[in-house]
Amino acid sequence: MIPRYSRPQMASIWSDQSRYEIWLEIETLAAEAMEQLGTIPAGTSKVLRDKGAFDIQRIDEIEREVKHDVIAFLTSVSEHAGPEARFMHQGMTSSDVLDTCLAVQLTRAADILLADIDALLAALKRRALEHKYTVTVGRSHGIHAEPTTFGLKMALGYAEFTRAKERLLRAKEDVGTAAISGAVGTFAHLDPRVEAYVAEKLGLKPEPVSTQVIPRDRHAMFFATLGVIASSVERLATEIRHLQRTEVGEAEEFFSEGQKGSSAMPHKRNPVLTENLTGLARLVRGYAIPAMENVALWHERDISHSSVERLIGPDATVTLDFALARLASVIDKLVVYPEKMKENLERGGGLVHSQQVLLALTQAGVSRENAYRLVQRNAMRAFRGEGEFLAFLKADADVTAALAPEKIEALFDPQHHMRNVDVIFGRVFGA
Amino acid sequence: MIPRYSRPQMASIWSDQSRYEIWLEIETLAAEAMEQLGTIPAGTSKVLRDKGAFDIQRIDEIEREVKHDVIAFLTSVSEHAGPEARFMHQGMTSSDVLDTCLAVQLTRAADILLADIDALLAALKRRALEHKYTVTVGRSHGIHAEPTTFGLKMALGYAEFTRAKERLLRAKEDVGTAAISGAVGTFAHLDPRVEAYVAEKLGLKPEPVSTQVIPRDRHAMFFATLGVIASSVERLATEIRHLQRTEVGEAEEFFSEGQKGSSAMPHKRNPVLTENLTGLARLVRGYAIPAMENVALWHERDISHSSVERLIGPDATVTLDFALARLASVIDKLVVYPEKMKENLERGGGLVHSQQVLLALTQAGVSRENAYRLVQRNAMRAFRGEGEFLAFLKADADVTAALAPEKIEALFDPQHHMRNVDVIFGRVFGA
Amino acid sequence: MIPRYSRPQMASIWSDQSRYEIWLEIETLAAEAMEQLGTIPAGTSKVLRDKGAFDIQRIDEIEREVKHDVIAFLTSVSEHAGPEARFMHQGMTSSDVLDTCLAVQLTRAADILLADIDALLAALKRRALEHKYTVTVGRSHGIHAEPTTFGLKMALGYAEFTRAKERLLRAKEDVGTAAISGAVGTFAHLDPRVEAYVAEKLGLKPEPVSTQVIPRDRHAMFFATLGVIASSVERLATEIRHLQRTEVGEAEEFFSEGQKGSSAMPHKRNPVLTENLTGLARLVRGYAIPAMENVALWHERDISHSSVERLIGPDATVTLDFALARLASVIDKLVVYPEKMKENLERGGGLVHSQQVLLALTQAGVSRENAYRLVQRNAMRAFRGEGEFLAFLKADADVTAALAPEKIEALFDPQHHMRNVDVIFGRVFGA
Amino acid sequence: MIPRYSRPQMASIWSDQSRYEIWLEIETLAAEAMEQLGTIPAGTSKVLRDKGAFDIQRIDEIEREVKHDVIAFLTSVSEHAGPEARFMHQGMTSSDVLDTCLAVQLTRAADILLADIDALLAALKRRALEHKYTVTVGRSHGIHAEPTTFGLKMALGYAEFTRAKERLLRAKEDVGTAAISGAVGTFAHLDPRVEAYVAEKLGLKPEPVSTQVIPRDRHAMFFATLGVIASSVERLATEIRHLQRTEVGEAEEFFSEGQKGSSAMPHKRNPVLTENLTGLARLVRGYAIPAMENVALWHERDISHSSVERLIGPDATVTLDFALARLASVIDKLVVYPEKMKENLERGGGLVHSQQVLLALTQAGVSRENAYRLVQRNAMRAFRGEGEFLAFLKADADVTAALAPEKIEALFDPQHHMRNVDVIFGRVFGA
Repeated sequence: MIPRYSRPQMASIWSDQSRYEIWLEIETLAAEAMEQLGTIPAGTSKVLRDKGAFDIQRIDEIEREVKHDVIAFLTSVSEHAGPEARFMHQGMTSSDVLDTCLAVQLTRAADILLADIDALLAALKRRALEHKYTVTVGRSHGIHAEPTTFGLKMALGYAEFTRAKERLLRAKEDVGTAAISGAVGTFAHLDPRVEAYVAEKLGLKPEPVSTQVIPRDRHAMFFATLGVIASSVERLATEIRHLQRTEVGEAEEFFSEGQKGSSAMPHKRNPVLTENLTGLARLVRGYAIPAMENVALWHERDISHSSVERLIGPDATVTLDFALARLASVIDKLVVYPEKMKENLERGGGLVHSQQVLLALTQAGVSRENAYRLVQRNAMRAFRGEGEFLAFLKADADVTAALAPEKIEALFDPQHHMRNVDVIFGRVFGA
Repeated sequence: MIPRYSRPQMASIWSDQSRYEIWLEIETLAAEAMEQLGTIPAGTSKVLRDKGAFDIQRIDEIEREVKHDVIAFLTSVSEHAGPEARFMHQGMTSSDVLDTCLAVQLTRAADILLADIDALLAALKRRALEHKYTVTVGRSHGIHAEPTTFGLKMALGYAEFTRAKERLLRAKEDVGTAAISGAVGTFAHLDPRVEAYVAEKLGLKPEPVSTQVIPRDRHAMFFATLGVIASSVERLATEIRHLQRTEVGEAEEFFSEGQKGSSAMPHKRNPVLTENLTGLARLVRGYAIPAMENVALWHERDISHSSVERLIGPDATVTLDFALARLASVIDKLVVYPEKMKENLERGGGLVHSQQVLLALTQAGVSRENAYRLVQRNAMRAFRGEGEFLAFLKADADVTAALAPEKIEALFDPQHHMRNVDVIFGRVFGA
Repeated sequence: MIPRYSRPQMASIWSDQSRYEIWLEIETLAAEAMEQLGTIPAGTSKVLRDKGAFDIQRIDEIEREVKHDVIAFLTSVSEHAGPEARFMHQGMTSSDVLDTCLAVQLTRAADILLADIDALLAALKRRALEHKYTVTVGRSHGIHAEPTTFGLKMALGYAEFTRAKERLLRAKEDVGTAAISGAVGTFAHLDPRVEAYVAEKLGLKPEPVSTQVIPRDRHAMFFATLGVIASSVERLATEIRHLQRTEVGEAEEFFSEGQKGSSAMPHKRNPVLTENLTGLARLVRGYAIPAMENVALWHERDISHSSVERLIGPDATVTLDFALARLASVIDKLVVYPEKMKENLERGGGLVHSQQVLLALTQAGVSRENAYRLVQRNAMRAFRGEGEFLAFLKADADVTAALAPEKIEALFDPQHHMRNVDVIFGRVFGA
Repeated sequence: MIPRYSRPQMASIWSDQSRYEIWLEIETLAAEAMEQLGTIPAGTSKVLRDKGAFDIQRIDEIEREVKHDVIAFLTSVSEHAGPEARFMHQGMTSSDVLDTCLAVQLTRAADILLADIDALLAALKRRALEHKYTVTVGRSHGIHAEPTTFGLKMALGYAEFTRAKERLLRAKEDVGTAAISGAVGTFAHLDPRVEAYVAEKLGLKPEPVSTQVIPRDRHAMFFATLGVIASSVERLATEIRHLQRTEVGEAEEFFSEGQKGSSAMPHKRNPVLTENLTGLARLVRGYAIPAMENVALWHERDISHSSVERLIGPDATVTLDFALARLASVIDKLVVYPEKMKENLERGGGLVHSQQVLLALTQAGVSRENAYRLVQRNAMRAFRGEGEFLAFLKADADVTAALAPEKIEALFDPQHHMRNVDVIFGRVFGA
């Protein structure tokens, strides 16, 4: 997490200030519940609401001595709230506070990411509808295959990020549990209803069975899901990088006035935003493995997960937030060149229609193997630059024996490939 | 995927025979649909049902020449089915067959894994109920914390694998789509209803928008999910390895008659099964990253994902199947030593009750900080082996000023920690 | 490791037959050494040399009972060699055999990989010299930058795989140690000279300090190195995939007679080999993480590394061997299109010479910022397709105020970029 | 990289201030070389030395407009140095500055890490010599195996980090190259001697063949090496965590006055430092994969590697620096309990001597299989807690038929296992 790739709202979730505020809220809510249950005398929660405060510098100072962050925090709060706060944290263990706080942070982070995805979806949908019938060549293996439309490319992204959204919703739910269950999760000194109360107030669910900590398979699933979403970011970014290649030139990242592409070569306009997204995706993906390694804690917990989460908690969410927002902006402002798409499509001299010919030949009674051979031999000549594919076909007696020249010509109409675009759009965007 | 870590049912999903059978089924179903829609003349599907066959050696032979597996397969089928099969595969692209087949294989694999998890859950539940109140020490940081029960450890595993099951169900659904959409996904030469028909017959959903391939974010999510489940396997395996340590000795993998623990040291009984599971988890987890790297294919597809999937498709599912089955068996036959658990719990001379004392002191009006100090100074003496914790407390005037010795003694009853076990079991296993 | 991506020589290293042969050799050499040192009576090694044999099926059978592979092997050998073999393995532990065997396998595998790299280097050098001065456009961000040569691209690969070779030599050395040090590495029942003898005979070094096993940081380094080399394979493969794109068309994988590019589109010639290499690189890279996770074994060893190595030992080496050999063949037979390179270079209307102009302007006294602005404004017009860059410059009074038109024209000579090619080749290939 | 896990010296390498200082130094050195070669008029370098300065806020401001960091930097420097600086950066490309700077940063980081390792080695050596003959039980699979010494455990760490040092030295060398080769690495507007001059002054080597960038296989190797070293940190940390377990209690992290182990349980002293190291190792290891994914840049470069390096450059080096320093301190201050080691060793009732008995039996003429059976049957009874292993052996007629009771007793002397400790120390620490 570095300022260059951070947005303030997401970054602020991970500030010391936010964390301690959440801790204080958890302690206060727990005290409220205990008071209601009569476990502790009334008054603590009111004191915490009225005078509960902390001092970050003071916490740091205490922590340097006691080497324990929650104890340092509680001491600082006690210093503000006075002796009446002494029932705060009763029967709880540090992880009750830490893990419930992390759940709050991760669900808040998930909410921002969900909003990011919504913005991206809106951009993708707008561009999809705009270019629903903008013909472009479909490429497999980087090689021209058959016509498709630019709108379909955007629709593909839309469908992919709709899945991303569903996955993130599940991951948010997975990670959204609170535990106020004590030293080894037995509620030895706690009433389980405290946990239920705190959870409900924070929009979380109680963890059905915890140890000292909330099980880390939940967090592993969360970060793995971010890794998959980041990989979808990379896919769309890679598509745009390809389209912007000099030789392709079908689309281009918006290049603002005043922007400089290269210190040495003033002519350059580079797809630096999507290249950047490709790198960011590698980072987010990379955090999935440490998160999975965090699952196998020893017995009722060891603290090895903590350092990992202190870094990847912010790093993964902040980076993915930045990446999604950047991608939405790239899509939104993408400069699209339909003329260039048409030009590229046609440059192959109609080779992209080879399957049409193949099918027409088989339908005219030629065996599949022979049809393939006939088409390939003419395609290869065209591919070698010896002339036009259509002309070769019309001059090939074996071909014309099955298909009349006019029939062959009709097979070279790109509109043929448009006929089910509407069906697909219906599936993706609804009727 | 090596025989040592394979079970036949899962491995057979990935055999050449299975794959080609699924391909043939897909081609036959597609022909049926096309015939119903009138796209191809009636007859092909019947020919395929009656005479459709393939010869693996022949396919290999053809593939060596044409360097294309689906073409080799179609040729072999044609050789068996004769010229009437020439409408087979019409308008389809190889990936229509390959990707729909992969969806069939992965959903079948998921079904086996789901059954594996069910068996594991059954074993965990049985052992949880059996040991619901078997007292054992809970450990955080590998250090004695407070009492818990062995049943709770099993219940924790049960809850974790219940989550694993839910995740796998979603991952199965995510990866369970069919695409019969042609060269670049436009249905240029196909009716979308063919896809719908084939999908339904195979228990899949139609892919809303595909390119030449089904988008790989689906597969990435699938393999990432397997990685998270494998990490849960590792967690439980690590727990057992710890319990079997010589100094702990609280549980032990079943050691069969005739088994030899060590070639050099005949006295040894090693937790080799759970150590093995730890390694297998590393493998399955490792496959998540290549699967995520597979997402960013170029344009309407490149084939870089294929080699990855040829290996990790079998490797990840076969290894996880083996691991889950092994874990279920380990749990089922685990030899548990409640006496040893009791002995270990007591070895600390009651230090595990320090929080009870801490709470009683604060409830008796001592400030949190002072109570902590009082308990810690006596605990540390006991920890250093200078004597019994309880005795020290009863001899500490500052402590007895707040708590009468009989009161202190009562705090040392492990039963105190059992009072919410039933609540937790209710949450995990239902009322 | 699947036949499709395996070559027999590398695969055979990992066969049961090979492994047991190496085990027998280790046991025999150890017996020789012990006899020479008088630790065991003379005769065992001769018996092992003369009658030492094993039966794989029999080993499997015994292992099913005793659940210990080395004990099963020793029993099978004893059955062949008779009672005189009873001093075999004396004082040794299974890992002495297993780990020393793995060192033999990995160093043999490294030797094959080194030979693969040599073949690749030879192909790269040949193509580099062939195309030393074949001008092509250099691209940064996928955008035309300045001219370079195709030979330099090959030289870059040559230098990179020279580094790969050096890294592999070190990794081979790192992993090339033998341990015959007994149950926990103390040589309690062994003379360290046995280890030294066995190591020397096998071309290994003695492990300075082992536990029950050879430390796994060695293996982690080995597999991490393979991952880096695989990433270099991916880089070169990606270069070729880009060059073969329809719009670029500067080079092409050799496409054999009879080969079929697509089942549906007979015109296609796809870079399937290099796409495949991209996928294989992901696999090999992915094995680095489990190998690193293998390092932290418990105390004097746990066996969690074993299952990992049983899979990634073969998988990583066999896959990388296949990939390197495939890459060498791709480079060797790569079809290069210098005319197309020239055409692409020129398509930008000389924009690639913008830096030349920029420099000439600054040398003529224009400030860096102004020069940049002058060049960029003309470049952008050309980039937008409004006309020729050279013409715009010659018509820009601010430019011609500093540079005469003839001077500008001279700046557009690609030969300017060739002048240090020979220097670079000297650095890479020697004088 | 977060303050909690950062040390100032390493962190400062990655500050904006440091980076721009290195950039300025590179520009100045390049100008010096160009002046000496007569490529640019004399004066620029003197101006840069005398008046060369930059303003970080101003750079940020300019970058927001031009979206290019090096151009922003050059502009800021120009604003300070005036028009005489206009020959600065002539013929160079941004990456010449960026990549050479990164090489300086990574080699400086490597130097700090090397010093860290030296400090760790010193601590390990001191503790190894101190505990050379401190007997402790060796454990395989977490199960008592045979005696070893605590000094050998430290010697193992010493040997492992000696390897880590060698690997890091190579990685430093690998990454220590400068490139001042222009837009696509052809030295089109530069004399290669400029690169040589700058490299030498910065303690780097010239990159033999670069594109726009220094090839990323070098960086991948660097970060992969850090990942392997981090895994060695994890191994040693895991060892200590095990030794500190309540039931084992053989060693303990130093626990300072005032330190608090648990907010709830005042008796606890947890191995939090080594648990923390375990987590940090996961992080550093995780950065290896993105670094490897960075290798396959497109053509003469794309900028996807940049965002990755901006994060993992600091994160990996700062985290590993922190981890190595923490580990050195843990080892240095580790509290070792030899009495507890002895107690644990003896708790098995001599089972750890089973191999001694096995060997004595075979040497007395019993076949290997029979000897194994005899030892195992008595060991298992002892293991089940039915009595003492030694007593069982002496009461087993089949055993005493081969070995007299006194002979058996003599086999139970732990000193037997010490006889080669000195040999091993000689190998590790030299004579």
